[in-house]
Amino acid sequence: MRIVFSCTGTKAEPWLRSLRMALPDAQIEEWAPGAPQADYAVVWAPPQTLLDEQPKLKAMFNIGAGVDALMRLRLPADLPIVRLDDAGMSVQMAEYVCHAVIRHYRELDVCEVDEARQRWSYHPPRLRSDFSVGIMGLGVLGERVAKAVAAFEFPVNGWSRSPKSIDGVRCFHGQDQFHDFLAATRILVCLVPLTPDTVGVLNRDSLGRLKPGGYVINVARGAHVVDEDLIALVDSGHLAGATLDVFHTEPLPPEHPYWQHPKITVTPHTSARTERELSIGQIVQKIQALERGEKIAGVVDLGKGY
Amino acid sequence: MRIVFSCTGTKAEPWLRSLRMALPDAQIEEWAPGAPQADYAVVWAPPQTLLDEQPKLKAMFNIGAGVDALMRLRLPADLPIVRLDDAGMSVQMAEYVCHAVIRHYRELDVCEVDEARQRWSYHPPRLRSDFSVGIMGLGVLGERVAKAVAAFEFPVNGWSRSPKSIDGVRCFHGQDQFHDFLAATRILVCLVPLTPDTVGVLNRDSLGRLKPGGYVINVARGAHVVDEDLIALVDSGHLAGATLDVFHTEPLPPEHPYWQHPKITVTPHTSARTERELSIGQIVQKIQALERGEKIAGVVDLGKGY
Repeated sequence: MRIVFSCTGTKAEPWLRSLRMALPDAQIEEWAPGAPQADYAVVWAPPQTLLDEQPKLKAMFNIGAGVDALMRLRLPADLPIVRLDDAGMSVQMAEYVCHAVIRHYRELDVCEVDEARQRWSYHPPRLRSDFSVGIMGLGVLGERVAKAVAAFEFPVNGWSRSPKSIDGVRCFHGQDQFHDFLAATRILVCLVPLTPDTVGVLNRDSLGRLKPGGYVINVARGAHVVDEDLIALVDSGHLAGATLDVFHTEPLPPEHPYWQHPKITVTPHTSARTERELSIGQIVQKIQALERGEKIAGVVDLGKGY
Repeated sequence: MRIVFSCTGTKAEPWLRSLRMALPDAQIEEWAPGAPQADYAVVWAPPQTLLDEQPKLKAMFNIGAGVDALMRLRLPADLPIVRLDDAGMSVQMAEYVCHAVIRHYRELDVCEVDEARQRWSYHPPRLRSDFSVGIMGLGVLGERVAKAVAAFEFPVNGWSRSPKSIDGVRCFHGQDQFHDFLAATRILVCLVPLTPDTVGVLNRDSLGRLKPGGYVINVARGAHVVDEDLIALVDSGHLAGATLDVFHTEPLPPEHPYWQHPKITVTPHTSARTERELSIGQIVQKIQALERGEKIAGVVDLGKGY
């Protein structure tokens, strides 16, 4: 068995080492143009050339939850694209989102500004029932985040393309219920896949439908947000602010207004990082299952794009 | 029935209004010297005179979880002192502590410093298994906090005076196991009651036993901490820092070194605030139970001091 590895922005050596230990009988190399035909590819944002030169792949494993970078390529219709199921990412997302929700609701960001001024401040308590949290996207990550937020007794809404049912979460679905979902939500958490349907989904119209004092937490992709619309709604006071982990261009360019905006918190795409050993464990198990002729979970629906 | 109210630092009017609505047949007044004999008192840090002048009280309700301010008074041995069971405080504690744990473990505080400098930084992921969290005090608040932290998959230790058993928490108890608890802990959360035994319990010796890179979260009372010892251990590098919500003197005096210390986060005793309506509901139910001759939960053991 031959496996090629091509992950933009990722050091190949530790991945190759671990993959070779897990699959000692396989030939595992970093991909380069002209490489021999492989059975499997492990990729993150690979070049089109890899796909063009490797028509015999039995499956392609994406080392992340979002496959939008792959969807921009010309893919053979019969090539199974496999994304990571969880691999330690859902707990990280739950952490990141709960931290941002609690920080905003409890005004711990304001406390820190007060601290810098040596000011012992008093902020009247706010009502948890006024801070409904809406999770857009109820896949493995979204469901975990919804449950984590609900454990702190916030009212939690969820929205997904197809109907879902999650204990303690008021679930909306489909385009028809999207506006109702927004109108019921004050803190919006974006966790949908990036597809042609969701580019720019967080814009003046949708964000304007959030409850007054709305707040946006984006942990999906930068292209979900129309930056000027978000900034305008924060500046007009309709939105109280945002915590953003992902951007149209990463690293976020130095001149971008997000950096210095006092109500917008920027983090460097750190909300959930691929955990190498967990990911390799998952990929190896799936390769072994495929070799035994079994079905595997996590195969992307190319029609939906996720 | 007559009830007196005496809560230092709390506006009486909204409490009196709600208590009167809940118990329309009772006489409910703010206490003043020379007030008629009452059946019940609702208090926070009341003066000794109230106790001296009101020998006929059937019970005294403390509107907080910690009764250390009461324990400093001369109390009749047969007066039941009742503290709030939870009254919305445990979820607030869980929020505050999880926010601090996540912020430290995920270096989100560092991200914010980077953001101020417009620096898109990369911090290598840290291992969750290296960040064991130890909860000192496993009462209603401590147990809720332990479970909330465990939901984020941190290894969680707990310590209490008497043995406890909590799912997902490695429980230690008694003085004999205190050092083992500290040695197994990296992030220490203080939630024990303040008693003569626990004044200064967080000192050079105890904090020095935490794992290297230890971190302290104090949401109990300022007097649990020997401030100079904590600062010395942070400055020596044994501790990575602290998040402190409570202090020997509150408001924290302007000259206190905590304010400006870059590794110490100060919040203005905001971790868990008494929720008036929930508290009044609980007090009213307990008064009614006592009037029916029933036993109630939350009566302080004057021997233990909590």
